Amino acid sequence: MVVRQGSTLQLRSGCPINLSLEVLGDRWSLIVVRDIIFGDRRHFRELLTQSEEGISSNILADRLRTLVDAGVLSRTDDPRHKQKVSYSLTERGIQLVPVLAQLAGWGVRHLPVSDELGIRARILDEGGPPLWSRFMDELRWMHLGSPRPAGPSVFDDLQAAYLAAAAKSARTR
Amino acid sequence: MVVRQGSTLQLRSGCPINLSLEVLGDRWSLIVVRDIIFGDRRHFRELLTQSEEGISSNILADRLRTLVDAGVLSRTDDPRHKQKVSYSLTERGIQLVPVLAQLAGWGVRHLPVSDELGIRARILDEGGPPLWSRFMDELRWMHLGSPRPAGPSVFDDLQAAYLAAAAKSARTR
Repeated sequence: MVVRQGSTLQLRSGCPINLSLEVLGDRWSLIVVRDIIFGDRRHFRELLTQSEEGISSNILADRLRTLVDAGVLSRTDDPRHKQKVSYSLTERGIQLVPVLAQLAGWGVRHLPVSDELGIRARILDEGGPPLWSRFMDELRWMHLGSPRPAGPSVFDDLQAAYLAAAAKSARTR
Repeated sequence: MVVRQGSTLQLRSGCPINLSLEVLGDRWSLIVVRDIIFGDRRHFRELLTQSEEGISSNILADRLRTLVDAGVLSRTDDPRHKQKVSYSLTERGIQLVPVLAQLAGWGVRHLPVSDELGIRARILDEGGPPLWSRFMDELRWMHLGSPRPAGPSVFDDLQAAYLAAAAKSARTR
């Protein structure tokens, strides 16, 4: 069973699409997961203050709790950091990469995506499942302590492409 | 530009994941799209009364309006049917198949999915992108009037597998 006892999630049907959407709650949940996956934001304050969409503090706290309850994130005390609590992806959370990649690919093809925020979606879309799989292995290293995968870092490549696009768009503004 | 003038959608950032989630609104939007794609429910009453999750009439009306505004569905008068208004997928809506397939695949691997409601997700997961692509061609025929694709119907195969699993689960209950 996914959901912790005492969870307030209501499971309305056993359909896999419905259950996924119930566990993910609403759009803010996937936004939080996105910021942890692509921005490596692991602490409450980073997730709050660096939010592109201006998530509110109470929604962030609620969605982090839901995602931990649903087994998508784990929450640990991080004694090296002055904000003691840090969040990591679980294997279940890492397996959301293909869902986010497809959602991002759909957005980039159909919606008025900005250059700098769309570049990572374009790279993920072009790389397809083999790239997603390499990225997931890297996230297993970053979040689960698995061995570091060989080869160039997908995370760094995505980040570098984003920073280059953001700099270019700042110059032409 | 995606969104019709006068739309109430607030676009909080140009990130493709955020935009996709804003356009899709909330979980009920994807549930409605799911029922149109996999159940071929094209009229308000079918979508309302056959809903596994018990969508309410006002939420359904609101989400249909949002999805039409976002260009995911089109709304036409159907003179052959006593409920005159019918909904069809647009190309943009059909391209949500890979998003739903990934979301369903994630659900079936991680959540307490029921046998009969999980069978289609398992088939889509095993078939992968080639099967999704054939299914999308069939939806283009069903919703957009494109030529009927050759070969067996993915829609019928999914439906038959679901009905067989539902019958089996009714027998063993």
